[in-house]
Amino acid sequence: MKEILNILADRYASKQLQAIWSPQGRVLLERELWIAVLKAQKELGLQISDETIAAYEKAKGLIDLNSIKEREKINHHDVKARIEEFCVLAGHEQIHMGMTSRDLSENIEQYQIYKSLQLIREKAVSALVRLAKRATEYANVVITARTHNVAAQPTTLGKRLSMYGQELLCALTPLDEYIENYAIRGIKGAVGTQLDLLTLFNNDPAKVALFEEKIIKYLGIHKTLKSVGQVYPRLLDYQVVSLLYGLSSGPSNFAKTIRLMAGNQTASEGFAEGQVGSSAMPHKMNSRSCERINGFHVILQGYLTMLSCLAGDQWNEGDVSCSVVRRVALPDSFYAIDGLFETFITVLDQMQIYEAVIDRENQNTLPFLATTTILMEAVKKGIGRESAHEAIKEHAIQTVSDLQKGVIEQNNLLERLSKDNRINLNLDELTQIVNKTAHATALAKDQIEQFASQVDLWSKRFPEAITYSPHTIL
Amino acid sequence: MKEILNILADRYASKQLQAIWSPQGRVLLERELWIAVLKAQKELGLQISDETIAAYEKAKGLIDLNSIKEREKINHHDVKARIEEFCVLAGHEQIHMGMTSRDLSENIEQYQIYKSLQLIREKAVSALVRLAKRATEYANVVITARTHNVAAQPTTLGKRLSMYGQELLCALTPLDEYIENYAIRGIKGAVGTQLDLLTLFNNDPAKVALFEEKIIKYLGIHKTLKSVGQVYPRLLDYQVVSLLYGLSSGPSNFAKTIRLMAGNQTASEGFAEGQVGSSAMPHKMNSRSCERINGFHVILQGYLTMLSCLAGDQWNEGDVSCSVVRRVALPDSFYAIDGLFETFITVLDQMQIYEAVIDRENQNTLPFLATTTILMEAVKKGIGRESAHEAIKEHAIQTVSDLQKGVIEQNNLLERLSKDNRINLNLDELTQIVNKTAHATALAKDQIEQFASQVDLWSKRFPEAITYSPHTIL
Amino acid sequence: MKEILNILADRYASKQLQAIWSPQGRVLLERELWIAVLKAQKELGLQISDETIAAYEKAKGLIDLNSIKEREKINHHDVKARIEEFCVLAGHEQIHMGMTSRDLSENIEQYQIYKSLQLIREKAVSALVRLAKRATEYANVVITARTHNVAAQPTTLGKRLSMYGQELLCALTPLDEYIENYAIRGIKGAVGTQLDLLTLFNNDPAKVALFEEKIIKYLGIHKTLKSVGQVYPRLLDYQVVSLLYGLSSGPSNFAKTIRLMAGNQTASEGFAEGQVGSSAMPHKMNSRSCERINGFHVILQGYLTMLSCLAGDQWNEGDVSCSVVRRVALPDSFYAIDGLFETFITVLDQMQIYEAVIDRENQNTLPFLATTTILMEAVKKGIGRESAHEAIKEHAIQTVSDLQKGVIEQNNLLERLSKDNRINLNLDELTQIVNKTAHATALAKDQIEQFASQVDLWSKRFPEAITYSPHTIL
Amino acid sequence: MKEILNILADRYASKQLQAIWSPQGRVLLERELWIAVLKAQKELGLQISDETIAAYEKAKGLIDLNSIKEREKINHHDVKARIEEFCVLAGHEQIHMGMTSRDLSENIEQYQIYKSLQLIREKAVSALVRLAKRATEYANVVITARTHNVAAQPTTLGKRLSMYGQELLCALTPLDEYIENYAIRGIKGAVGTQLDLLTLFNNDPAKVALFEEKIIKYLGIHKTLKSVGQVYPRLLDYQVVSLLYGLSSGPSNFAKTIRLMAGNQTASEGFAEGQVGSSAMPHKMNSRSCERINGFHVILQGYLTMLSCLAGDQWNEGDVSCSVVRRVALPDSFYAIDGLFETFITVLDQMQIYEAVIDRENQNTLPFLATTTILMEAVKKGIGRESAHEAIKEHAIQTVSDLQKGVIEQNNLLERLSKDNRINLNLDELTQIVNKTAHATALAKDQIEQFASQVDLWSKRFPEAITYSPHTIL
Repeated sequence: MKEILNILADRYASKQLQAIWSPQGRVLLERELWIAVLKAQKELGLQISDETIAAYEKAKGLIDLNSIKEREKINHHDVKARIEEFCVLAGHEQIHMGMTSRDLSENIEQYQIYKSLQLIREKAVSALVRLAKRATEYANVVITARTHNVAAQPTTLGKRLSMYGQELLCALTPLDEYIENYAIRGIKGAVGTQLDLLTLFNNDPAKVALFEEKIIKYLGIHKTLKSVGQVYPRLLDYQVVSLLYGLSSGPSNFAKTIRLMAGNQTASEGFAEGQVGSSAMPHKMNSRSCERINGFHVILQGYLTMLSCLAGDQWNEGDVSCSVVRRVALPDSFYAIDGLFETFITVLDQMQIYEAVIDRENQNTLPFLATTTILMEAVKKGIGRESAHEAIKEHAIQTVSDLQKGVIEQNNLLERLSKDNRINLNLDELTQIVNKTAHATALAKDQIEQFASQVDLWSKRFPEAITYSPHTIL
Repeated sequence: MKEILNILADRYASKQLQAIWSPQGRVLLERELWIAVLKAQKELGLQISDETIAAYEKAKGLIDLNSIKEREKINHHDVKARIEEFCVLAGHEQIHMGMTSRDLSENIEQYQIYKSLQLIREKAVSALVRLAKRATEYANVVITARTHNVAAQPTTLGKRLSMYGQELLCALTPLDEYIENYAIRGIKGAVGTQLDLLTLFNNDPAKVALFEEKIIKYLGIHKTLKSVGQVYPRLLDYQVVSLLYGLSSGPSNFAKTIRLMAGNQTASEGFAEGQVGSSAMPHKMNSRSCERINGFHVILQGYLTMLSCLAGDQWNEGDVSCSVVRRVALPDSFYAIDGLFETFITVLDQMQIYEAVIDRENQNTLPFLATTTILMEAVKKGIGRESAHEAIKEHAIQTVSDLQKGVIEQNNLLERLSKDNRINLNLDELTQIVNKTAHATALAKDQIEQFASQVDLWSKRFPEAITYSPHTIL
Repeated sequence: MKEILNILADRYASKQLQAIWSPQGRVLLERELWIAVLKAQKELGLQISDETIAAYEKAKGLIDLNSIKEREKINHHDVKARIEEFCVLAGHEQIHMGMTSRDLSENIEQYQIYKSLQLIREKAVSALVRLAKRATEYANVVITARTHNVAAQPTTLGKRLSMYGQELLCALTPLDEYIENYAIRGIKGAVGTQLDLLTLFNNDPAKVALFEEKIIKYLGIHKTLKSVGQVYPRLLDYQVVSLLYGLSSGPSNFAKTIRLMAGNQTASEGFAEGQVGSSAMPHKMNSRSCERINGFHVILQGYLTMLSCLAGDQWNEGDVSCSVVRRVALPDSFYAIDGLFETFITVLDQMQIYEAVIDRENQNTLPFLATTTILMEAVKKGIGRESAHEAIKEHAIQTVSDLQKGVIEQNNLLERLSKDNRINLNLDELTQIVNKTAHATALAKDQIEQFASQVDLWSKRFPEAITYSPHTIL
Repeated sequence: MKEILNILADRYASKQLQAIWSPQGRVLLERELWIAVLKAQKELGLQISDETIAAYEKAKGLIDLNSIKEREKINHHDVKARIEEFCVLAGHEQIHMGMTSRDLSENIEQYQIYKSLQLIREKAVSALVRLAKRATEYANVVITARTHNVAAQPTTLGKRLSMYGQELLCALTPLDEYIENYAIRGIKGAVGTQLDLLTLFNNDPAKVALFEEKIIKYLGIHKTLKSVGQVYPRLLDYQVVSLLYGLSSGPSNFAKTIRLMAGNQTASEGFAEGQVGSSAMPHKMNSRSCERINGFHVILQGYLTMLSCLAGDQWNEGDVSCSVVRRVALPDSFYAIDGLFETFITVLDQMQIYEAVIDRENQNTLPFLATTTILMEAVKKGIGRESAHEAIKEHAIQTVSDLQKGVIEQNNLLERLSKDNRINLNLDELTQIVNKTAHATALAKDQIEQFASQVDLWSKRFPEAITYSPHTIL
C-alpha cells in the first residue's frame, strides 16, 4: 500500500508553509527547543556539561520518523517516543528536565501557528497590492453595478474590485493586531503552577521567570499567558482560524463575482499557458480557480467548526480530546488559506475583462439605470415625486416586459418617457441624462484612490509582498 | 522536503478503508470503469477491437502518480491528465468515448462512498456486538445513576452501556436504509440529458438505457438517479456524512461517561500492554482513547459543515466549487469514523471497572437515592405528599451540608428521618427501603436483554462483524 | 417595553405550525398528557376519583402564562411551576404521580416534533406537485444548460426544474422513513429504569408495560425507545433537523438558479399583486423570495450546528445543558423550514419565464453547444479525435475572443469551421448539426416524465397536498 | 392564537439589550436618523422647512407596528412601508431623499450592533471583576488539579478560577479593539458610489462628505467604510459574532468545571433563595445555571454558523439572501451572550465550595501528586532517573489497583515506596515531601495576583461594571 498524502499540503499549499508543519520540521523545532532549554538551564546553574549539549546538537538533524513511530507503537505516547529517540541518538538522558509533554508541544504548536500567521499576513498584503493594481487599471471602465443580481446603477470595475479590497482590509487589521499581541503558554508545568521548574531551581521564582524569558525569546514571541493549566485555552486556536476565515471572505466574494461575470462574458479568470477547458467543450473557459477559491472558503468553515467545538470544552486543568482535532484542523486550515491566496493572486495576475461586452451590457441597461436621475430631474422641474415615480415605473416595467416577450429588440424606454407629460422631459433632455448616467459613477474613482493609498501603507511595512510570485497552480 | 501524509489515514484509519481512497486505488477503479465502458460499448455494437481492450487491460496496473501529476501541470485538468496517461500506456486512444469528465468522477466517487458505507456499517455492528457483550457482563453491577452529574437513582452498569447501544442502533437503522437505497448518477453526459451517449448509439434510447444498466451492474449498485445535471446533488454527500456523524454520537456519549467514571475511579478505558501514562505521572491512567473518540466526533462535525455548505449551492446544471471540498471532506470523514470505530472497539475490549469503588459510591449515595421511595412509602402510609416532600428535602439538604462542611463523615440521613414524625417511618423501615433501593434497578435487566436481542438480529446479517478485530491503536 | 416576538414564527411560519409550538399549545398538550396519565393509572387500579379527573379536565383550558412565570420565578423550576398552577386551578394534588419532569417534557417535545414532521412532509409533497406541474409545462422550452455558469449543451427548462425535484425526492424519502420509525422515550422515570412506575404498580412489570402502551397510544406514535436514561438521545433531534436541512437543499438550488436566470432576464420569480420593487428603481424585479429561500437554508444550517453540538455530549444518564438550546433550535428550525416551503410554493406559483430572451441566448450559444456533436460527426467521417478537437478548440476560442473584443457582433463559428479542412464538414452540414443541436435535448423529456410519475405516487398518499395553498408571504 | 415570543429575549436577555433590538426601538432609531438627515440636508442648503421637520419630530413617537405590517402586506417592501407610515403620520413626503433602503437599514443595524457590543463589553468586565474577587478569596484553598479528569498536581481553587479569567481576557482584548475601530457603511447610495447624494448636492463632493460626517457623528461612531456596494461586507457581522463566541469560551470552561466539581461534591453553583431541586429528588443540587451557560455557548455557535455562511457570499454589489438570516442571527446572538453573562455573574455571586470535601480528596491523592517531587528528590540523591521512574510507577499502579479492588481503603503508597531501595528515601523523608506537596502550589498565588491586577485596569475604564447587578434569573 502506498502512502496517502495530505491533499491540501501536497496540491495547494506553498513550500514555505509545508516546511513549518511537516513532521520533520516539527521534530527539528522540538529538538531545538530542548537544546535551548538545556542551555538556559545550564546558564541558570544546573549541572549540564558542554559535551552533553554538543551531543544533542550533533544528533538533532538525524530525523527518522519511522523509528519514532515504532517507539510510539510500544509506549503509546508520542512525546515519550520522541524523547527516547533523541536521547538514544545523543547517548544522553538529560533533555526535558522540569518539563511535561505539554511544555513541549504547546509551545511548539503555538510557534508553528505564529510563524504561519506571519506568512499568511504577508500573502494577504501581496493580494492587496494586486487588487489595488487592478482597481487602478480599471478605474475608468464603467460597468453596470448589480444588486440582487439585477442592473442597478453604473459603477466602475475598479470600484467593484476595491470593494473586495476594502473587505480584505477589514479582515487584515484584526489579524495584524492579533499577531502583534499573540501570547504563548510558556513552560508552566503539568497544571500551570510551574511546580517542577520551581523545584528544579530550588524554589527561586526569579530563576523560573528568567528561564521562561530566555525560552520565549528564543521563539521570538513577546508575550506569555499568565495563568493557564496543562494547556493554553483552545479559544486561541479558534481565534486564529476565525481570523483566517475572515481573510477568505473578500477573496470569496471576488471569486463569486468573477464567476457571475464569466456567465455574462464580461470577464474571465484567464488561463495559464497550456491550459485547456473541459475535454468535451474546448471553447469553455470555466472559472475553475475562482470556484476553487470558494471551495477553500468552505473548507476553512469546516475547520472553524472543529476549533469552535474545542473552545469552551476544557475540563479542569485540561484534556486531550482536542489533540486529534488540532492535529488535523490547525495545519490544514493554514494549507487551505495558503492555497486560497496562491490561487487568488494567480487569478488577479491572469484575469481578463471584455470591454466590448461590458459596453453592450451598459447600452442595454443605461436607460433603466438613469431612472433615478430622471426622477430627480423631473422633481427639480416641479413634478411631484410620487406621480413621476409612478410614471417611470409604468414605462420601465412595460419596456422590460416587451423585451422579455420579444416585442422589441432594443430598449426604447426614453422614447416612451418623452411622450408622457407626467414627466415633463423631452427626448433630448432624457438622452442627455442617459449620457451623463453613463459617466455617473460619482465618487467611485475617489474611493479607489483611498483604497490604493491604504494598501500603500501595508506594502511599505511588508515590501517583499509587492514582488511575491505564487507557485504555478494546478 | 519530505512528503506530508494525511494524518487521519496514516495514523487512525484501517487498511481496508485506505485501499478504497488512496490515489492508486482510485486510478485503478477509474481504469476498470473505462474498460467496462469499452466492453459495454463493444457489446452494443461499437467498433472496438479485442486487441484494444487487451492493451488497456494490460496497462491498467501500471500506475505512476508522478507521471499523471506532470501531465496535469501541463494541461491543468486532472481527468484529461489521467486519460492521456492511460492512453499512452496502452498505445490506443479509445477510452472515455461518449463520456465527460464527470461521467467518470461522479460514478467513481459514489462507488468509493458506497463501498466505504458498507465497511463502516459492518464496523458499527462489531461495536454493537461488543457493547451487548459488556452490557450483559455488567447486567448485575449496580451503580449510582447520575443526572446533571449528580447521584439520582440506582441503575446497573450494563443498563448504562445499553443506552449507548440503543443510541447507536438509532443511527445504524437509517444508515442501513440509506445504503440499500443509494442511487448513483450514471453516465448522464455533460448536462444530464445523455446527449453524447444518444449520439454515440445513433439515437437509440434503448441502447443508452442498456448501456447504463451494464455499467451500473458492474459497480454493484441497484439504483440510478433519474434527472441530474453535470453532477449528482451534493445533498447526497451531506446525507452520507450526516449519517456518519449520527453513528459517532453514541460512542461519543460512551466516551464522555468513561472519562467521567475515570474521574471517580469507578472505571477506566484500560491499557494495551506496554503502554505508559504521562511521563511525569507514572500512576496516571488517562482516558486517552476515549478523549480521542470525542475528538473524532468533533472532526466529523467539521466535515459535516463543509458538506452542508455544498448542499443547496448548485448553480444551474452544476459547478466545481465543491471539487476541492469533496476531495478533502469525503475521504477524511471516512478515515475519521473508521478511526473512531477502531478506537471504540478497542476500548470496549480493554475497559476495566472497579466494583469496590462503585460499591463505596453506592453506600454514600443510597440514602439519598432512596428518598423518592421513602416519599412514596410515606404517602402510602397516609402522609400528605407535599409535607413529606418538605421534610425529606430539609433533612437531605442538611445531611449534604454537614458532609460538605466536614461535620459528619458518613451519610446519616436515615437516622435523621427516623426521628421526624412528619414522615412516620422508623429506622428499620427506612433501612429496609434503602436495602431494597440498592437493588431497585427496576427494569434495567429487561432493557439490556431487549438491546442484546436487537444486536443479535444485526450480527446475524453481518456475521463477520462478530469476530472483527481492530488494528493496534497508537 | 413591548414584547419581542419570535420573528421566524411571526413573519414566516404558518398558523398550523405556530399552533404546535406556541407556549399555550404546549401547556395544553401537557395537561392533556397528565389527564391521560391519571386515567390510565385509574384504569390500572390506582385510587383516583372521577371527580379529581373531572376537576383537572375542567381546568385544563385555563392557561395563564404569566401566572406560571411568576411561580417559576419563585421555585426556579419550570415543570414544577406548571404542576403547581394546574393543581391550584383544579383544587387537587394528584397529577404527575410516578413521573419525573422529563417524563413530561421529553414526551411532549417528541410529540411536537412528530406532528411538525408530518406537517412538513405534506408541504414538501405540495412543493413537488407544483414542481412537476412546472416541469411538465416547460418540457419543450429548450434552454442553454450551463456548467460552471457557462453555456454547455441544450437542455429544457422542464428538465432543469425536474433536477431540483429529483433532489427534493432524495431528501423526502429518508424523512418519510424516519417519521414512520420515530420512537418516543415513554415514561421511563428519573434514570430510565422505570423505578417509580414499578413501585407505583407494586412491582408488576406487566402493568408498567401496559401503562406505557396506553400513554403512547394516546400520543399516536408506534414505537418506544427501549433503553434510555433521563432523556432520549439528542441524536434524534440532530437527525430531525438534519432531515429538514436536507429538504431545504433542492429548493435552495432552485432559488439560486432563478436568481441567476433573473440576472440574464430569462426568468423571474414573479410578483404578487400590489408588490413594488426597490423604491429608487421602480423597474427592478428583484428575486427577493428566492433570496429568502436561500436565507432559510442558511438559518437551518445554524440550528443544525446547535443540535449537532448536543449529539454525543450526554454525561451519564443525562443533563440539561441541552435545554436552552433545544428551546430555541427545535421550534425555530420548524418555523424556518415551514417558511421556506411557504415561500417556495409561492414562487413556483408565480414564477415567469421569458422565452424570447431564452431564444436569443440559445442563438448565441448554439454553435458552441454544437461543438461536441461536430466533433463526433468529424470523427465518424474518419478524422482523428485529437486533431479535430484541436481545430474546433482553436476556432471556438478565436470566435469567443472576437466577440469579447467587439471584432464581431454575431457568432460566426460555423463559417470558420467550414473553411478548415482538419474538420471536413461544409457549412450546410454544420448548419444542419446546429439546427439539430437546437433540439438535441436527448432524454430530457423522458426524465421529466419519470419525475412526474414519482411525484404522483406521493400525491396519492397525501392528496391534500395537491390543493394546499400557502399564506400570503411578506 | 396568542403571540409567540422570542424566548432568548423574553427569558434570558436584559432590559437594556431588549430595548436596542425591539421592533419599537428600531422604528424610533430609524425615524431619528431620517430627521437627522432632514436637518443635515437643510443645513447644507436643501429646501426643507422647519415646519416639515417639526411635523416629523412630533410624529416620531407614534409607533404602530400593526399599521406598518398592514402596509407591508400591500407593497411587499418593509422599508417602503415604514416610510409611508411615517409620512402619513407627519402629513409630509420629504424624508429619505437621496437615500436608498439600505442607506437606512445598514446604518441602523450597524448602530444597534455597536451599542450592543459596548453593553456586552461592560458585562464582560463585570464578570471579570467577580472572577478576580472569587480567585482572590480562594487563593489559599489547595485543590487537586486534574488533567484528563484525573488527579495531577496540587493547585489552588483561586488559580483554577484565574485560568478562566485569563481566557476571558484573551477574548475581551480583541473585542475592545474591534469596538474602537468599528466602521459604519454611511450613506453610500444604491451601489456605493454616492450617486444620489452627489446629484442631490449638485455634484459637490465636499457637501457629500460633509453630509456623511454629520450623520455619522449623530450615530456616535468614528469611522466609515470607504468602498462598499449596496451593503457593508457581511464579514463584519461574522466578526462580531465570532468575538461574542470567543467571549463565551472562558465562562463555558468555568461552567463545565463547576459541573464536574459538583459531581465530586467539592463545589456547587449555589441556589437563589426559594429555589428547589428536582421535584422527585429534593436533595439534588443540579448545576442548572452552569448547564445553561454551556447551552448559550452552543447557541452562539449556531448563530456563528449562520453568519459565517453569509461572509464571502456576496454577489456583485450585494443581495438580500442575508436579510432573513441577519434578522434572526444578529439580535439573537446578542440575547444569548447577554443571557450568558447574566447567568455567569449570578453563579459567580452564588457559588459555594466545600473545603472539607476538597481536603478529603487532597488526602487521597497527595501521595500520587507527590510522585514527580519524589522522583526529583530521588534523582538529586543520585538515583538514575529511569530506574526511579520505573519503581515509582510500579508502586503507584499497584496502590491504585488495590484501591480499585477494595484490597485497601487508604492510600498507602508512601509505605510501599519507603521499602523499595531503588528509591532510597525513608518514610519520614517521603512524608515530608508529601506535606510539602500539599502546599506545593508553586506560583499559583502570583498568577492570581497578576490576573487581578489586569482586571483592575479594565474596571478602572468601566467603573460601573464593578457594581453591576444582574436581573434575577429563572
